[in-house]
Amino acid sequence: MAHARRREALRAQLHSHDLDALLVTDLLNVRYLTGFTGSNAALLVDAGDEEHTVFCTDGRYDAQSRRQVPDLRRVIERAADLRLAKEATERGADRLGFESHVVTVDSHAALVEVTGADRLRRAPRLVEQLRSVKDAAEVTALRAACAAADAALEGLLASGGLRPGRTERQVARDLEDRMVQAGAAGPSFETIVATGPNSAVPHHRPTDAELQRGDLVKMDFGALVEGYHSDMTRTVVLGAPAAWQRELYDLVLAAQAAGRDALHPGADVREVDAAARGVIDGAGRGEEFLHGLGHGVGLQIHEAPALSPRGVGRLQAGMAVTVEPGVYLADRGGVRIEDTLVVFDGEPELLTLTTKDLVAV
Amino acid sequence: MAHARRREALRAQLHSHDLDALLVTDLLNVRYLTGFTGSNAALLVDAGDEEHTVFCTDGRYDAQSRRQVPDLRRVIERAADLRLAKEATERGADRLGFESHVVTVDSHAALVEVTGADRLRRAPRLVEQLRSVKDAAEVTALRAACAAADAALEGLLASGGLRPGRTERQVARDLEDRMVQAGAAGPSFETIVATGPNSAVPHHRPTDAELQRGDLVKMDFGALVEGYHSDMTRTVVLGAPAAWQRELYDLVLAAQAAGRDALHPGADVREVDAAARGVIDGAGRGEEFLHGLGHGVGLQIHEAPALSPRGVGRLQAGMAVTVEPGVYLADRGGVRIEDTLVVFDGEPELLTLTTKDLVAV
Repeated sequence: MAHARRREALRAQLHSHDLDALLVTDLLNVRYLTGFTGSNAALLVDAGDEEHTVFCTDGRYDAQSRRQVPDLRRVIERAADLRLAKEATERGADRLGFESHVVTVDSHAALVEVTGADRLRRAPRLVEQLRSVKDAAEVTALRAACAAADAALEGLLASGGLRPGRTERQVARDLEDRMVQAGAAGPSFETIVATGPNSAVPHHRPTDAELQRGDLVKMDFGALVEGYHSDMTRTVVLGAPAAWQRELYDLVLAAQAAGRDALHPGADVREVDAAARGVIDGAGRGEEFLHGLGHGVGLQIHEAPALSPRGVGRLQAGMAVTVEPGVYLADRGGVRIEDTLVVFDGEPELLTLTTKDLVAV
Repeated sequence: MAHARRREALRAQLHSHDLDALLVTDLLNVRYLTGFTGSNAALLVDAGDEEHTVFCTDGRYDAQSRRQVPDLRRVIERAADLRLAKEATERGADRLGFESHVVTVDSHAALVEVTGADRLRRAPRLVEQLRSVKDAAEVTALRAACAAADAALEGLLASGGLRPGRTERQVARDLEDRMVQAGAAGPSFETIVATGPNSAVPHHRPTDAELQRGDLVKMDFGALVEGYHSDMTRTVVLGAPAAWQRELYDLVLAAQAAGRDALHPGADVREVDAAARGVIDGAGRGEEFLHGLGHGVGLQIHEAPALSPRGVGRLQAGMAVTVEPGVYLADRGGVRIEDTLVVFDGEPELLTLTTKDLVAV
């Protein structure tokens, strides 16, 4: 049902772009529109109706696709994109859109051999645009993914997993194991655990560095559930926080709250970024906030919209985004606080429920 | 030194393809030619000399690229491909190759705006072709990656890690942890552990299924070291092997030996596949060998050459490949045995050293 509704929404896009059909070759877009999870497939979405909409995969996925895509005509052929381009051509689709942001120059040349020179139209990011607004099934999956990450962090803290002498790598693996135990298929990206001065590196990779008393420990991690990605960062302190750590934490916490408060339908993504950035700028720390405020999450860990000074567009109800300001003091330590939220009329829904009080362990 | 030699080898290719320069935008190809490991870069390789060869990345990687790419002119700009296309155009490169198997239609359109319509030439897979033959530094990295996987499996077996009651997931995580302890940056792909009937699924994903006495347990895994991927499969039996398990194992073992024996410079890749496949066909099991015999490994887990009935080309000394026949009896169990080897004149070098005797644990 959800997949048929998504295809119907795409048809409205095809009409407004004056296309007879769209050849979908990005695998995540195919998954979004059909539920198919294999590694080779294409989908021809006809602007008219479901009857002329065709799914193609190869023989390895015959049984799987019968199960996952019961509601569309299926054809089995290895070169799925070419097979469907041929079908569209034979059917007389004069304006056949293709995903020009994904299709390579060589693949395009092969398509042209099938369709002739004048039929293909560049139609980038039509499905990505739909994907930026989540439907109920997607929000449910995101909620489950965020819950698995919450459970992992709770279990880590309860078991004393953040203690001096453990290494960043050990803590990262521990979090990942706990997410899997909580029902995740795996981590949604490479887990970041950064202790002491390493916490000042925004995308630090875990090392054998040991946690030490007095360290800020920054953990950025997420779980993958039914293909959907959660994303959360918490920063804690080992022992009683020093004054500078408390001050830094409170600044980032205030910026994060300001960013969350700015999440409402219609807001310009640059204004959302500016709401948080302004707090940090006001404290004279703007130069130490080294990245954008947040990004969309869903079937990809980074997707539209970008909440950043260079972002484009406005929020809509149903968009799932992260809000993750950070301030990084080189060679001393950094703090980042990140939630995943869904924009709705009124308050956004907070999906990552772990406390944002400064936890001293 | 290795990187400069690789660029020199690429220049010979540019001459034979009548190109003035190649715009390298695939990040692994950039890494291969320069050593740079960041997430945004491009390289303009001039057919003439190093002086006109230019590397470009963005500001985030200024310090890192100064360290990793000390021997080339560097420019800093976010749109690295466009910046270098502009430079090539201003320099009057009339035949500018680009990686048409990687560059999207939209990116190509942006390049054409910079270069004009007549300058760009499709030049797919030139660097990949060089990469298929490994140099000494690459073989050293592959050897280390294979050693980490060997050590992990040895540790797993020595610690009783393969015992009834453990789950596929637990064994997979155990192997991955041990590879990291042995010096790997991580697994080189998603670890496969498949027990009992699951072993009949070629690319089974680990589940909570428990290992049981009498099961075949298939483990396909590898380590990542300095960007290079190892790949190994071993199948063991929990307890005394049944007659059918022993028979299946001996068949695959014989096929694997035949495949390895066929590895020599000049061999057609289809003949290497056929050498192993013939053994399995001869036992009437050809329909149950569901995939190609092997593939190249290096900076990617799957790269050229493909050892399969549809493969193209001949082996050369220095190619690193897997040899991995498998026979899968649906709902009963399967056996796959896989090594990573480097082709040399005379005997290939075996990099995965774990025994291939049927281990009963």
